[in-house]
Amino acid sequence: MPRIRLTLAYDGTHFAGWQVQPGQRTVQGVLERALAPLLMRRGVPAPPPRVHGSGRTDSGVHAVGQVAHVDVPEHRRGFPWQKALNATLPPDVRVVAAAEVGNDFHARFSARSKTYAYTLWIDPAYVLPQRARYVWQCGPLDLDAMDRAAALLLGEHDFAAFRNTGTNTESTIRTLYRIDRSTGLHPAECVLRFCASGFLKQMVRNLTGCLVAVGRGKAGPENIRSYLEEGDRSAAPATAPAQGLCLEWVEYPEAPAQGGHGDEHQMGPDRSPAPH
Amino acid sequence: MPRIRLTLAYDGTHFAGWQVQPGQRTVQGVLERALAPLLMRRGVPAPPPRVHGSGRTDSGVHAVGQVAHVDVPEHRRGFPWQKALNATLPPDVRVVAAAEVGNDFHARFSARSKTYAYTLWIDPAYVLPQRARYVWQCGPLDLDAMDRAAALLLGEHDFAAFRNTGTNTESTIRTLYRIDRSTGLHPAECVLRFCASGFLKQMVRNLTGCLVAVGRGKAGPENIRSYLEEGDRSAAPATAPAQGLCLEWVEYPEAPAQGGHGDEHQMGPDRSPAPH
Repeated sequence: MPRIRLTLAYDGTHFAGWQVQPGQRTVQGVLERALAPLLMRRGVPAPPPRVHGSGRTDSGVHAVGQVAHVDVPEHRRGFPWQKALNATLPPDVRVVAAAEVGNDFHARFSARSKTYAYTLWIDPAYVLPQRARYVWQCGPLDLDAMDRAAALLLGEHDFAAFRNTGTNTESTIRTLYRIDRSTGLHPAECVLRFCASGFLKQMVRNLTGCLVAVGRGKAGPENIRSYLEEGDRSAAPATAPAQGLCLEWVEYPEAPAQGGHGDEHQMGPDRSPAPH
Repeated sequence: MPRIRLTLAYDGTHFAGWQVQPGQRTVQGVLERALAPLLMRRGVPAPPPRVHGSGRTDSGVHAVGQVAHVDVPEHRRGFPWQKALNATLPPDVRVVAAAEVGNDFHARFSARSKTYAYTLWIDPAYVLPQRARYVWQCGPLDLDAMDRAAALLLGEHDFAAFRNTGTNTESTIRTLYRIDRSTGLHPAECVLRFCASGFLKQMVRNLTGCLVAVGRGKAGPENIRSYLEEGDRSAAPATAPAQGLCLEWVEYPEAPAQGGHGDEHQMGPDRSPAPH
């Protein structure tokens, strides 16, 4: 069966996250429902499609470059997936690109790195209405202190203190390649961009919560070191809210195959595919 | 009575424009309702306040730098207007700055220039969900042809062909200082930024509709010249939709007085106050 790689953008505000859940509106669920009628042949329903994402995003988290793959019937080879899906999907989820890939491509297991952006709004007096759904209003921050703290988080660490409790027992070691800070669309926006080999559950939101605590003078470099050493989630600062987070980019070893609108646009200044 | 200058941002999606209209949700109406209880003294209602805007914005048009003024009772001198109004206004309208100004300041009559941005989305395959409420998806455009056409519109002209019919008979001569084109937040966004001494009703949307017609090869420089010369609205291309338009900046001869959060942030790359 041909395998299709989909690059997806969504506004997470009205989604209960990526993963299918009974009775909830999820991105994966909406995609699978939009795909089902496109896989039929002469009106005969195909088995329900399964869309595999590069990873889950939490309820309320946005994406401009989520990647997923789906296997489709042979008779649908060459089908205009982007156009057909965008014609039926709701406007808060869009197919940015679609291309046939080899069957060795796996949206989750082939991923080499991911880049998330977290947008803070540092003006305490107001949030621009046009940006309110995409930022966390957290007031003035000591940005230099945050930069120094971010440097301590880079590299390979056991990020157990930054993983939400209640998840499974896989390794909590990850490599954080970069944390870049930049000004966003508006001067009151401070964007923290995280690139890592992979992220644990709520890891970006927990790292952001920690850096904001540093920016508010509630934690210092010595705290960062002890969070990493002790691995105790309950000792580290609170999780940042979901709405400031956006999955920007998933990097794979190879460029997507021909047969689609293959160039992927990124929001924000950093468009390089990334790690070293 | 002290006069307060308000700088306002709003998401126009759910407003029937700026101006108060019976039975409609308007920015002016929402502001006046939020102000009324703040003007009372010992529970005695004050006369309903009148908020004067720098100009009307149409239904669906956004703003990041609309300016208005309102006169308030003497006992409210020094009141924290920004904080108090933002505490009661709905989140789709925000006070970006508030400052007491002299009684010779008038939001409309003192304005020296205005800058509007119109955002086009030039990728025909999709619109990013996070940007869908703020752009007009118009597909690929010949941007060089649009730049050449824009140059013909600059300067002092009779813009009667770009004024919506049915308005009053004031002069239709305006001076267009600049039309700048830039890439927006996302590479698929093409932002046209118009700065003029003043704008006629729907003039920016009509100019944008005209430039998009040029970008689509439906009009050329000779058409621009004849629209300006003949002054016939019905001969010029159709009005661009409201949602792509944003009032960015209103310039006044003097800086706002002390007593407020006086620096005004702008979206987009051009933050200079402007005309020559």
